[in-house]
Amino acid sequence: MTSRIVAVDPFDLVVFGGTGDLAHRKLFPSLFRREHDGQISEPSRIIGVSRREMDAAHFRADVKKALETYVPEEELDKAIVKRFLARLDYVAVDATGDDGWEDLKAHIADGLDRVRAFYLATSPNLFDAITHGLSKHSLLTPKTRVVLEKPLGHDLASAQEINSAVADVLPESQIYRIDHYLGKETVQNLMALRFANVLFEPVWDSAHVRHVQITVAEKVGVEGRGGYYDHSGALRDMIQNHMLQLLCLVAMEPPSTMQADALRDEKLKVLRALKPIDETNVRTLTVRGQYRTGAIDGKSVPGYLDELEDGVTESATETFVALKAEVQTWRWAGVPFYLRTGKRLPSRVSEIVIQFREVPLSIFGSAGGFLAPNRLVIRLQPDEGVKLYLMIKDPGPGGMRFREVPLNLSFAETFKGPNPDAYERLLMDVIRGNQALFMRRDEVEAAWVWADPILEAWSRLGQKPASYTAGTWGPSAAVALIERDGATWHEDPS
Amino acid sequence: MTSRIVAVDPFDLVVFGGTGDLAHRKLFPSLFRREHDGQISEPSRIIGVSRREMDAAHFRADVKKALETYVPEEELDKAIVKRFLARLDYVAVDATGDDGWEDLKAHIADGLDRVRAFYLATSPNLFDAITHGLSKHSLLTPKTRVVLEKPLGHDLASAQEINSAVADVLPESQIYRIDHYLGKETVQNLMALRFANVLFEPVWDSAHVRHVQITVAEKVGVEGRGGYYDHSGALRDMIQNHMLQLLCLVAMEPPSTMQADALRDEKLKVLRALKPIDETNVRTLTVRGQYRTGAIDGKSVPGYLDELEDGVTESATETFVALKAEVQTWRWAGVPFYLRTGKRLPSRVSEIVIQFREVPLSIFGSAGGFLAPNRLVIRLQPDEGVKLYLMIKDPGPGGMRFREVPLNLSFAETFKGPNPDAYERLLMDVIRGNQALFMRRDEVEAAWVWADPILEAWSRLGQKPASYTAGTWGPSAAVALIERDGATWHEDPS
Repeated sequence: MTSRIVAVDPFDLVVFGGTGDLAHRKLFPSLFRREHDGQISEPSRIIGVSRREMDAAHFRADVKKALETYVPEEELDKAIVKRFLARLDYVAVDATGDDGWEDLKAHIADGLDRVRAFYLATSPNLFDAITHGLSKHSLLTPKTRVVLEKPLGHDLASAQEINSAVADVLPESQIYRIDHYLGKETVQNLMALRFANVLFEPVWDSAHVRHVQITVAEKVGVEGRGGYYDHSGALRDMIQNHMLQLLCLVAMEPPSTMQADALRDEKLKVLRALKPIDETNVRTLTVRGQYRTGAIDGKSVPGYLDELEDGVTESATETFVALKAEVQTWRWAGVPFYLRTGKRLPSRVSEIVIQFREVPLSIFGSAGGFLAPNRLVIRLQPDEGVKLYLMIKDPGPGGMRFREVPLNLSFAETFKGPNPDAYERLLMDVIRGNQALFMRRDEVEAAWVWADPILEAWSRLGQKPASYTAGTWGPSAAVALIERDGATWHEDPS
Repeated sequence: MTSRIVAVDPFDLVVFGGTGDLAHRKLFPSLFRREHDGQISEPSRIIGVSRREMDAAHFRADVKKALETYVPEEELDKAIVKRFLARLDYVAVDATGDDGWEDLKAHIADGLDRVRAFYLATSPNLFDAITHGLSKHSLLTPKTRVVLEKPLGHDLASAQEINSAVADVLPESQIYRIDHYLGKETVQNLMALRFANVLFEPVWDSAHVRHVQITVAEKVGVEGRGGYYDHSGALRDMIQNHMLQLLCLVAMEPPSTMQADALRDEKLKVLRALKPIDETNVRTLTVRGQYRTGAIDGKSVPGYLDELEDGVTESATETFVALKAEVQTWRWAGVPFYLRTGKRLPSRVSEIVIQFREVPLSIFGSAGGFLAPNRLVIRLQPDEGVKLYLMIKDPGPGGMRFREVPLNLSFAETFKGPNPDAYERLLMDVIRGNQALFMRRDEVEAAWVWADPILEAWSRLGQKPASYTAGTWGPSAAVALIERDGATWHEDPS
């Protein structure tokens, strides 16, 4: 069963960084899938832009290769590939200079009344130059949307700088700060569960939830990205953006509509209610780690320092963070939100666990055995899905004994066909002009207001990352962080 | 996966009515299954009793035939059948006279310190004679339990009479009034869901539940039982006992333990909180029906009057009842409990439906479509199981649209092997001395206190049953009863 497809209005989409990795791996395959499903209307055009001189035929050939690499073969219907490639064009533009802009303008001159999107899949240090270039060459129309990829700064000051530069030439309503985690089906489903059902909101509070866990675990190391990563680290790379956004969706009050600003107002309230972590409590509330050489899936892998450039022999950058956050609202005060992310962990998994409290009393006595508290597990990857763990009676003519069963809301089983990639949804939302799943400036900055003092405290107190063996779940202090509270990190047996 | 079996203490079980239909269809097959699973300890004995002279060999041969009829062939392991039959003995007793009692006593004389159960699978008008016979012949020991089958009276006065007669010779703690509905796995699971999980109790009230439906639908007519049934009717036969018991388990407050009296105290409170139905409101709160000839599964079936004895041409007995009950407690006031039962309905189904309220507001607007309110469906037969209907997001890159999915807690899928029959559990509970699933005297009488005024009001107002075609869901007034409130009888699509 597939859902009905509503085609979006015709558009011109310009991808800066159009020859880059993100464009090849995610953007063009996602656009192709939307083409495949008939969601892209004639006469939409997609224009790749980068500094490099190249003709359109060459560009199309590169994109074709990318599709063949990243789209399953059975979806590559020849006629559709041909139709999709025919939409593509290419323009070389010098983002920081003057070359190519007029050429770009000529390519989309007849699209003045059409939805126009500029996807900035480039380094953030080009955002200023590109948006000002667009402005200077009169490429910004009222129907223009500009998509900004992360990272949006490495602290509050730099984020403000980027945001201000873009705000010089564009109103907030035309700026789309993307966080692909928000485009995932299961994240949508988290909102569906909460707000399309009457069953969960009554237990969605400190009276019924003991704690929340958010884990984003990667198996990969920094590999070729060591140069960038060593100036960033796990808190900036994962927690300040993706994981805080997930936390917001779990913790926010019901917005009065799903309109972008209603939703973002609620997320902002959560960010602003985060309990500050600073020098006074950073040691008890956070754990930093850095992987050393180890083994994953039976293969030995290098340590973090070995993956950095030659000559670098030490680094205080964390590749792992575990922390205990708190949302200081009436709904959530006192409920720990345990966040954990790292590289070179034993498995690749992103999930949110809502751990409910125990029943106040087992009326079944000791014969009933342990009543495992209910849990809702929202899995973002792999195997997107939602599982609700309930206790049911052990069948049989004996006494009341219980067993935990996972109620499976796995999409793969419930629905035929692959899930759309998060970028598919988000790209279509850009065209539709729906900002709900994009971060507003004040959200990004509020997240930095919370994250900066943690970074500063680590630095000032000299809290170096603890070493952990690649292929393990981080430093033992990360386990202690949660076990101290009598809780345990969730590990799905499946 | 099967649950571990804990053998019960050795026992002597005497089945009055041991050559009857219930014994053959349910009791011996259930006991055999417990034998099969190793739950019956040596040197337990099972003694059939009836008025008829018969030797033990003949009795065993009859029981063997019953097992071959009612137990699936693959379970009939020859060695186990042999072991089971070896436990059996037979004594002819004249329940209303003096013959046979001493013979019975001789058969179980060496079992004085052993659990001793007398199962009265006879007409209730023998309960007085049999219990007094047991007393007179000194067969009642402190470890004796007497099981009474329904019906326990046809109104409050006759129920009190039976109860008082039995109470003459036995304390309440040794009396087991059986209602096999309470022995069903799903009924146990209803208690497990409510009290072994923290998720349901917070929504288990008038703020979150719009209404409750309890349906017990039969395809069969009265067939050979017309003589009995015509003096009883659906209210006495189903609602006053089975269905009120189910209602109690849904509506009761959490007992402080699962000990028999704690549980029964809570059920009693529900029965006593039932809003009275009498002449003033019986017309709006109840619907009576009687089937006329029709068709079920494409086969024509006779009407009720045709199934009665020759010469009977009219009857005011109802073969169908629908009614709207209310539990007048803080938790439930204002929540309708719709009860519906009947013979010759389109399908054989017993189920409890907890219909939750709609979400207070759809934040998804009209684009989100209709948000079907959540439902919990507890199916007692056929296909015992529990389904929770939730709304989830329609997958795809489009907007937020929703779909109802049933989360299946069906035992057949979750667990291998057949469910135990309700009688298996209840018989073992008798041996274990666990009265939790048996009705206490005050419960039975409280149910009559509520039912009697309905019967009287029908009679005094001359509210004759409305005719309905066999194979339909009763008189149209039954539909109107619930639709007036803007609700609909649940019909599972599966």
